[in-house]
Formats: sequence, C-alpha cells, structure tokens
Amino acid sequence: MAYDFTSLTNLLAPKTVAVVGASANPIRIGGRPISSMLKAGFTGTILPVNPKRDEIQGLPCYASVSDLPTDPDAAIVAVPAVDVLPVIEDLGQKGCRCVTLFSAGFAELGEEGRLMQERLIETVDRHGMRLLGPNTLGAFNALNGYYGTFSSSLDSGYPIPGNIGIASQSGAYGTHLFAVARNRGLGASVLVATGNEADITVGDAIGWMAQSDEVEVICAYLEGFNKPDRLLEALELARDARKPVFVMKVGRSTLGAAAAQSHTATLTGDDAVADAVLAEYGAVRVDQTEDMLDFAYCAHQRVYPANNTMGFITISGGGGIVASDEADAIGLSMPPMPEDAQKELKELLPISSPVNPLDATAQSINEPSLMEKFTRAALEKGGYSSICGFFTSVGGAPVLVPSVIEALKPIRKEYPDRLMVVCVVAPSDIVKQYEEAGFLVFEDGSRAVRAIHAMGVVGDNFAAAEAAQGAKPVLPSVSLPEDTPDEFQSKALLAAAGITAAPEVAATSKDQAVAAATEIGFPVVMKILSPDILHKSEIGGVRLGIGSAEEVAQAYDALLEAAKTHAPKARVTGVLVAKQLNGGTECFMGVSRDPAFGPVAAFGLGGIFVEILNDVVIRRCPFDEAAAREMILSIKGSPILTGARGREPVDIDALASMLSKLSGFAAAAGPRLKSIDINPVMAMPGSGGAFMLDAVVETDTGKEGGGHGD
Amino acid sequence: MAYDFTSLTNLLAPKTVAVVGASANPIRIGGRPISSMLKAGFTGTILPVNPKRDEIQGLPCYASVSDLPTDPDAAIVAVPAVDVLPVIEDLGQKGCRCVTLFSAGFAELGEEGRLMQERLIETVDRHGMRLLGPNTLGAFNALNGYYGTFSSSLDSGYPIPGNIGIASQSGAYGTHLFAVARNRGLGASVLVATGNEADITVGDAIGWMAQSDEVEVICAYLEGFNKPDRLLEALELARDARKPVFVMKVGRSTLGAAAAQSHTATLTGDDAVADAVLAEYGAVRVDQTEDMLDFAYCAHQRVYPANNTMGFITISGGGGIVASDEADAIGLSMPPMPEDAQKELKELLPISSPVNPLDATAQSINEPSLMEKFTRAALEKGGYSSICGFFTSVGGAPVLVPSVIEALKPIRKEYPDRLMVVCVVAPSDIVKQYEEAGFLVFEDGSRAVRAIHAMGVVGDNFAAAEAAQGAKPVLPSVSLPEDTPDEFQSKALLAAAGITAAPEVAATSKDQAVAAATEIGFPVVMKILSPDILHKSEIGGVRLGIGSAEEVAQAYDALLEAAKTHAPKARVTGVLVAKQLNGGTECFMGVSRDPAFGPVAAFGLGGIFVEILNDVVIRRCPFDEAAAREMILSIKGSPILTGARGREPVDIDALASMLSKLSGFAAAAGPRLKSIDINPVMAMPGSGGAFMLDAVVETDTGKEGGGHGD
Repeated sequence: MAYDFTSLTNLLAPKTVAVVGASANPIRIGGRPISSMLKAGFTGTILPVNPKRDEIQGLPCYASVSDLPTDPDAAIVAVPAVDVLPVIEDLGQKGCRCVTLFSAGFAELGEEGRLMQERLIETVDRHGMRLLGPNTLGAFNALNGYYGTFSSSLDSGYPIPGNIGIASQSGAYGTHLFAVARNRGLGASVLVATGNEADITVGDAIGWMAQSDEVEVICAYLEGFNKPDRLLEALELARDARKPVFVMKVGRSTLGAAAAQSHTATLTGDDAVADAVLAEYGAVRVDQTEDMLDFAYCAHQRVYPANNTMGFITISGGGGIVASDEADAIGLSMPPMPEDAQKELKELLPISSPVNPLDATAQSINEPSLMEKFTRAALEKGGYSSICGFFTSVGGAPVLVPSVIEALKPIRKEYPDRLMVVCVVAPSDIVKQYEEAGFLVFEDGSRAVRAIHAMGVVGDNFAAAEAAQGAKPVLPSVSLPEDTPDEFQSKALLAAAGITAAPEVAATSKDQAVAAATEIGFPVVMKILSPDILHKSEIGGVRLGIGSAEEVAQAYDALLEAAKTHAPKARVTGVLVAKQLNGGTECFMGVSRDPAFGPVAAFGLGGIFVEILNDVVIRRCPFDEAAAREMILSIKGSPILTGARGREPVDIDALASMLSKLSGFAAAAGPRLKSIDINPVMAMPGSGGAFMLDAVVETDTGKEGGGHGD
Repeated sequence: MAYDFTSLTNLLAPKTVAVVGASANPIRIGGRPISSMLKAGFTGTILPVNPKRDEIQGLPCYASVSDLPTDPDAAIVAVPAVDVLPVIEDLGQKGCRCVTLFSAGFAELGEEGRLMQERLIETVDRHGMRLLGPNTLGAFNALNGYYGTFSSSLDSGYPIPGNIGIASQSGAYGTHLFAVARNRGLGASVLVATGNEADITVGDAIGWMAQSDEVEVICAYLEGFNKPDRLLEALELARDARKPVFVMKVGRSTLGAAAAQSHTATLTGDDAVADAVLAEYGAVRVDQTEDMLDFAYCAHQRVYPANNTMGFITISGGGGIVASDEADAIGLSMPPMPEDAQKELKELLPISSPVNPLDATAQSINEPSLMEKFTRAALEKGGYSSICGFFTSVGGAPVLVPSVIEALKPIRKEYPDRLMVVCVVAPSDIVKQYEEAGFLVFEDGSRAVRAIHAMGVVGDNFAAAEAAQGAKPVLPSVSLPEDTPDEFQSKALLAAAGITAAPEVAATSKDQAVAAATEIGFPVVMKILSPDILHKSEIGGVRLGIGSAEEVAQAYDALLEAAKTHAPKARVTGVLVAKQLNGGTECFMGVSRDPAFGPVAAFGLGGIFVEILNDVVIRRCPFDEAAAREMILSIKGSPILTGARGREPVDIDALASMLSKLSGFAAAAGPRLKSIDINPVMAMPGSGGAFMLDAVVETDTGKEGGGHGD
C-alpha cells in the first residue's frame, strides 16, 4: 500500500503543457489538442513546439523543447516514432513530469518496436517521469479544460461535466464510451486512454480517480492485466473511498482473446481468474457498454443500498411481470408488501393489485395523489431500499407530468437514502424534468431492474469490505525441494502445512497395530507392508472393515500368515493400519499459476462434475476459511455436500480449512510452484473430517524466481 | 389446419364501425376511438351510438344499435359491464361481425364476472360474431386509419407505417411496445390487445397477421396460453409464410407467474414447456422489450440467413473484441477470413488486423475506399452472410458520412441477400442516411450482434421447417385400464407400445431356463419365483453373473434347493431368467401433462443430474426419433452418453427410439393419462440397446376426457 497514484495529476491537471510536434491544422494529430484546449478554455498554459513555425493557432511556438521559456509539468508528443527518444530525453532534462505519447510504432508492431519501447521506459524512468502511451489517443479532463487527445469524438461535442471517469486501454473504445455517455447526457468528465501501457496503466488511472475529488464513479475497459499489483491496489483504494468501479474486461471468448492479442501487446489472462479477482476486489464486471453506462448513470447519485430490495410500482401489469422475471433471473429481491399495507391500498384502489409488483393501474397516474400514496406505502410499509415506477408513455404525457412530479418530489426528498427510478417513454425534456426532481429515468424496465440490482451489488461489496477484518491468513513456512517432489514428498509437503491425509500408521507389532487402530478410530483398513509384495489383494494381504481391537489382533496374525503362505520369500516390514473412509464424497482441490495474479486455488466435486460439467470455483491465493467456505458452497453441485435428498451433509468446516491452508501453502511457496492437484480429497459425513488421498505438487526446477514458465 | 383467422379482417379493416357508448369528449374512453379515427383519416364509416346525442364529434349519432342506418361489420362497445349483454345481442341481430369490448368487470374480477363472461361468449357464438376483449384496450391498423382503441399512447404520436405487427395480451404493455417502437422510428402499423381473451386470443392475432399482406414481422406478448391449438396453428402459418414471430412469454419466475395470475384470468403454464413449444414451432422467445424491438427492426428487411456467419469490420480493436465475446456467448459463428484475403488486406493497410473481427483501424473510414475494399473482401472472400461495420462516433461525423455511404451503397445493392449492419454514434438524421442507403443501424455493438444472431435463428427455423417432411409419427393403439395400473401392468402397457424391458423369462424347468438364457444372451441373473418369498436375496434366491448353460443348470438346482431349505412351505412357481445389464448408464424418461399443451415427454440422466442439476430436456408429444435424438444430445450431461473421457458411447439409437415411442404412447393414451415415469432406463454401451427397468403409469380414474386434474 504505497504506490503513488497522485503523480497522474500532472497528466490530468497540468499547469503548463508542451505540445511537441504541434500543428497549425486543428484536425491533425498535433493540432487537435491545442485547438480543443483553446476552445474549451484550458486553465493552464499551452506551449507549442515545432521548428518550422513561430506561431501556432495564435500561440507563440518554440523550435525545440530546450527553447521553451518555462519548464512544462506535462507534454504531449506527436512526432514520428524514430524521433521520439531524443524528445523524451529533452523533456526529462527540462523537468517535465509527465508525457502523453501519441506516436505509434512501438511494442504493438513486434520485436523491433518492443526494444524501442524498452529504451523509452528506461528514459522516462531515469528522469522520474510518468508516461501515457505510446500509441495512445490521450487523456482529457473537462473540469479544467485539459484535452490532451487527438480524438475526433470531440467534434460532435465536449463532455458534460459530471462525476464519472473513464479509464480505457483502448483509445477508440474509450472514446466510444465517452461519446455514447455524452449523447445520453451522462457527465463523464475524465478520460484516460492508456494505449501500450509502457508506464501508466488502466490501474494507475483508476487509482488516481479513486483519490481525486472530482471522480466518484469509475468505468474501466481492460483487455489484459498489465502490472496487476497496481490495479489491485487501485481497486482497493476505490472501494475504500466508496467509489464503484465498473469493469469491462473483454476477451472472454477464445476469439475475443485472440483479437485482444492482435490489438495490443498484452496477454489476456484466463477469464475465470479475471472474474474471481475482480469480484474479490469488489469491482462490478460488465459485458456490455450499455450495462456499464446504465450502471454509471445510476451510480452518479451515490446511493448504494446493501441488502437491496426493490418495490416495483407499475401502471401496467405486464410491465410488472417483465420486471419480476428480470429481477428473479439476476437475483434482485422483491419481497411482497406487508398484508395490512396491501389491504389499505386495495381499499384505496380496488382494481389495484398491491403485492409486489404493485400494480396500481393507469388510474393511479391519472390521479397522482393515488400514485403518491402507493409510492409512500412502498417506502414506509414495504421498506424497500429501491423503488421503481413503471409509467411508460402515460408518465411521459406532457399534460400529466407536472402533477406527477409535484406529487412525488417531496417523497424523493424525504428518503434521500433510497434509490428511486422511473420508467417513462418520453422526449428528453420530460426526462429532464423527472431527473431534476431527483429521479433516475429509464425507458426500458428490464434495464432499470439490472441497474438497480447493480447498485445493490456495489453496496454489498462496500459493506463486505467494511465488515472484513482485513487480516490476511498467516502463511506457513514452505520450502520446495529442488527437484519436482514425488507423490510421497508432495503429500508430506502439504501435510506439513496442515493439510490432512487419511491417518495411517505402520505397525511392527500386534500391540502397535491395536494401539494405532484405537488412536485412528474404527473401522480401519489393514495391509501387509512389504517392498516385495506388489499386489497385496491377490495374496489376501488387505483386510477391510476392521471394527474392534480384537479384530485388529486377528487380522494382524492373518496378514502375516497370508504373507508367509503366499509369498514365503518376501521381506515383511510390518502392517499398515489406516482409517477406512466409508461414505465419503470425492472432491478435488488444486492450484495453478496465473501469469498476472500468481497462484489461484480451485475447488470442485470429483468425477463428472469437474470433467464434464466444469463445475469449479477459483480464487486468488491466499484466503481465509470464510472465503473458502463461500467458494465451496458456490459450486452448482454443492447440494451434494450440504445434504441434498436425504444425504448426510459432509464436513464443510474441514474442507474449508483444508482449502484455506492449501491457498496459504501456494502463496508461501513462491513463484517456483507451478501447480498442485489434490485428487481426490475425501470429504466425510458429519464432522468426520476431510482427507487428501493423493496429491501432486509440480515445481519449476530450472528457474530462480519469475513466473509460470510458459 | 382449418381455423379461420381471416374473420379478424372485420376487426382490423372494417368498412363500417359502430361506436356504442360514443362520447363527444375526445379523451373519454368512448370518445377517443372516434377522435383518433377522424384525425387519422379512417377509410371506413363511423357510426356513433348514444341515446343522449344527435351528433358526436361532427358525426350523426344514433340512439341505439337498432336505429343504425346500415349494418356495421364491426362495433366498439364502451358501456358499463351491466349494459353490455343487450348491446351485444342487438349488434348480433344487426349483422355485426366483430365486437371490440372495452368494458371491464368480467372474468378478471372473479366468479360473478366469469359467469357474465360466459354469457357473453354464448351470445357472440350464437350470432357467429368475433369478440375482442372484454377488458381490452382495443386494436388499431395504421394502414387504413382504424383506431379502435382508447390508448392515450396515440397522444404522443400515431404509428409509423411499416410491416411490423404487435399482438399483446396486455393492453398497457402492448401500447408500451408500440410507443417505444414508434419513438425509435419502427413501423409497427397493427396492434391487437386481447385483454380477457373471451374469444380472440394473441394466437388469433398472430394467425391473421400471418395471412395478411401488410404484416411481415410479428411481435407477441403473452402471459398465458389460452386456446393453445389456435396459437400453434397460427405459429405454423407464420412460419410457412416466412414471417418471424418474436415472443415475450412472461412469467418465467415464480414471482412473475404470480403477478401474471393477478393480472389476468389465465393460467401461466410451466415455463420450460413454453420454451420447448415455442422453439418447436420456430418462434423466437425473447425476455426483454429491447431485444424484441431490435430483432423486429432487423427483421423488417426480411433477410434471414440460415447457417448465419458474421464478418465484423471495426475501426476500434476494442469494439471487435466486445462483439466477439458477445457472438461467442450466444453462439454466432465468426470464422476467420481466408488467408490469402488476409494477406491482400494486410498489404493494402499494414496496420490492419484483417482476421475476424477485421480491425481496419480508423484510417479505413477516413479513407472510405479502404473501407469499401474491406467490406467487399468480407462479402466476397469471407462469404459471411451477415456483416457489421463498427464505426462509432467517427462514422457519425457529418464531414465523413456522405463519402462513407457513397463507398458502401453500391455493395449493399450488389448483395441483397446479406444482412448489413453499421454501428454508429450519431444523431438521427445521420442514422437515417445510413438507413436510406439500405443499412440497419445500431449504436451498441453487443445489441447489433444479438440482432444479427436472431436473424440467423429465424433463418434456421424456416429452413428446418422446410426440410422437415411434416410426417407425424404413427401413434400406437393404447387402451388404458380403468384403474391405475400396477408396475407389472405399467410395463406391459409400455412394452406393447414397443418400449423394451430388460428381457426376462419365467422358466419352469431346467431345460427351459437354459434355453431362455441362451436366447437372452449371457450373462444372466436368475431368481427364484414364489409368491411366498419376499426377500429372495436373504435365502440365497438370487444368482448374478451366470455365464454359461452349465452354470444355468447348476443355478437352477441350487435355487430350488435354497428354497426347499430356507422356505420349505413356500410355493415355488419357477425360476426367472433375466438379462444381466452390466456397464449400462442409468437414464430416466417421463411424461407429464401440461394444462395447455397436453402430454410432454422428458429425458435426463439418472441420479444427481436430474435431482440436483435439473439437467432435463422436454418436448411436446408425439415426436419422431430424430427429434428424440436431438433432445438426448442437448442435455448438459450428454458427453456421458456419447463417450466422454474414454467411456464407450451408449446406444443412443435405442434411447431415441424408446423416447419417441414413449411420446407416441403418451399422445395416443388420451387425456386420462396423468404421468409416466420410466426410471431407470438402462442405456447399454455400443449397440447393446436400452431397457426400462421400472415404470409407473399414472392415470386419472375419475374422469372422462378433460385435462390434468389440478
């Protein structure tokens, strides 16, 4: 927790900005930023640099960076790739703090470009500068008129001031988000497009926004995870500041991931890991632009109800059913109104159906005092943290709107902590009237329901983070052997970290065997131990279901006798006494190494559940038992563990403890750990424990440090 | 195939329409239709009926129906519920063919209303009239200016002429759909809101639209299935006419279904049955208004590519990845460009990534001749049936649009059979320019991808219906016993319909037993047969794994001996010789009766797959083996049947045959059949067959005809 995101203030709120490769043509790459800033009234000073001109767009122009009259705190560079390095060097010497590098022709173009990008990084690092790009569309901040971007999206309008910030790896998609937001009337003031991310990443931008006074809602577009530690730190900062982060992490599909790699020079990680990590850090993952902007729109009011419930008041029964279906599909709770409140409303309007959805019929909006009473009842009696009024085109009728708003506006003020949405089919001026009265406005009921649900998810995430003690599990001390361990060594390594194998003792006398069995608990299995007998069962060298001390003694003799009879020359080293695991459920646990986020633990049921249904849950290591329990209960097949159809529940505590310990082991083992498979883990009924029956630990033998080999 | 939907022409294109309960006030229920028709220039004659007036809204008014100067072919009735029946009677006597009944107060209000509604039905039936409503918002047809509706949604604008029709059980939701469509510029000319559906249902409206010259695309909103036979016939007509039907069947969730029942007087059927039946009839089920209208918008061009593939040309790499993710999630194929075509495009524009998505970069749209070449290559070389150009705000820039359209328009004309979509962030006048050039326009890429996919689904549905021979399976002759059959009778009933039980023979001599076993094939199971021995295993009366004739003979003696020893008084009737089914996979098959659609067959794997994962597929009975095979292969656990992870595949042919025969049995058994459970069905590896091991047939004993009891 020490990364300094505030240095991006030089990027987004510079006082003096040099534009190297400045153009007099306001639609050329080197001309657009100047033209945009001049039009928008940038509050700082612009210093154009171009050896061929004395004046550019009405501003004095300088021949070179070294000729600048003052030291710029930021620079925008738009020169051919081959000319970039000396310019950056000059800027460093001139004390510039942050460079936005539009120029393309670096890592995105292959090996030669990658080497040039490395020299670039070396140069900015040497001067302690920050770098946006290369190959970036730039950044802007409408709050001070800074437009360090050549995006043509500004041609159709400047941003609307507001508390939404956009951080995007893709310039074109980032400006697409901005343009759609602006056309919808959303106040997205700040945009950072990170391009090749040689230095500044989407994570950096999120971190800066998390600490800024202006941005309260963060929209991020990611193709891969560069410098994941910074991203996670930024997400934590945002969560602690109660600023929601909505993330489009694209490349879910193989095709999408392949396209992402041809689009940028980053590696698109495994998608399930992305899901797990973003959820862990309380970011809300979205798949579509429309969801992201719907959620950001709702979020701009900063009402995030934990344990969200929705009361849906509708003038169309159908609208209520559509909304109920959507709420059910995504898990938004819609409890019914209390019965006495239902009775009151039914008396008030007999044709209504005031359950939830509350079908108040079209009559309620034609008589706004009725709508007022339904709405008040939903808030007071229903206690819903969110309400949605589905008024469709009736609620958009100019003759009705003033009286509806007059009826509802006082309620909005009385309950500032509730989320209040109306769905109307109406022209923009009427939408604006509802918005000015404090209501969020949607046209489509299903979209409204999804956005209301998302606000609850944000609220739950904030609440969970506040409730968590923040104590990370204590890691064991792990020292991996130099060579890949065999099965016995693997089990021993894990056992040392507290991961329980099925108890077993090698006894060399009858008394020892009886004592061991008594210690382990009945029933036990007994097996002849001999390096010379490979197929124990065939010579009667295995006895199952031994239930008492007496039977142990008998079995001990019988096993020795069997060995003597069937394998007279074998060396017998003793008798193995092991716990017999009857009636357990086979599970599996494993660890793999994600290139971005390190060791990731997985849990699933054995056999077909994993192999055919892919019913597996994963989480970044390490995590505590509570998180492990949540994972275990989240798989689809979990009813098998918790006692479906008359089964006895298995020992979830023991499973959770084992999974958490495994995660600690993996985190402590360091980067040489490649993977772990514990398969099967036998989960016993009741409080019978959970035991690893087989385990493989795979290590990277050829390396010191570094990540996963391939 | 005999239902006459054309009688709805009297509803939607009447020549003379009486308005009973006419009002001079154009915003009252009895005034709105007249006012709307006068404004819209209704092509027919309006005859207001109101005893208190001589003239209404400038038209001569008549005191009663019998005073009308001519016989109306249609009537709109807006009088209190108590006055409705005599008016309907008068209209019948006056030769009226179709009544739209706005009045509420019938079945939706409980028992008394239900009885009134029955008398209403009796009256219209007696006169051979059609009835829309009661409790309906009415119907309209913009193509002839008929507005038999009191919806206030017309206050904000009349429909835009076009080939989309809306059939909705809910008036408010139907007009919500209309208003949203109109505001989007979609031409939805015809709306029928069916209300209580005493006679005319959504199915009737679909049937009429399927046969009309004006409607080509049908949007339907359903809460329940009234008169399901008509609906299915209508869906078939629509499919045969290559008119897509997009259906919002709401009430998926328990909450939604509960709301649907409080909203109308219809029963909301089981949602999975709705899914199966709509899919069977080629209707496309949608969950949201936005999807429905997006799909209808795309469909209005009537391009429905079977085996759809999409080429996605983008100026933003990010836009391409988002689209690829969406396409992958919903199953829209995006094959890559041929390699030689990739090479040519790469030479043309080295910074492009012309795979698929084809990232043509912003340069391609700034030089429209490049965009033209990329688009042409996608169509010619890529051969995609659908293409989508993601141009975002760049493609919405007024300076660029004319040259982009000029470049692309000729291609649109050259390939009339391809679906062509552009995604632009642009004001409506620019959107219109693209549309006039023949392109479908979306702002959001994900929505565009979903709509493109839906057109392919429509195309596949049409193609499948054309390919099907249409021959229904031949049904067996089934005669259910009067009482509920016991297990033995159940199996015998099913066996008579060709459903194979595991082969077994009751032998009364050693020779018979040997012959039976040889006939059945080894290994066999042998059991003592005696009405007096209940627990055969306990007395050694069951022998497994008998592998030869010799062993059969030995086992025969041993079983008789065991009976003599352990149950000397038991009557022994023989020895059962049965096929021993080793290595089979347990499945289950069943039939239940849906209140709307009759017998529905289900198939799943045994055990946890059904019990915990609910991995079951259902289909309306009867169906042929090809459909049964498709069902079997569609369950999530199907890899277990087809040979996942080195298993031997089971006999799918035998399973499909059994499932199809079961569906035939259920269809032939008539309405007294309540349910069938065949559990387990043992599916054997290879071509070893499939055998019912246990079966229960449940019948309704107290009834002749009629549906499911509860």
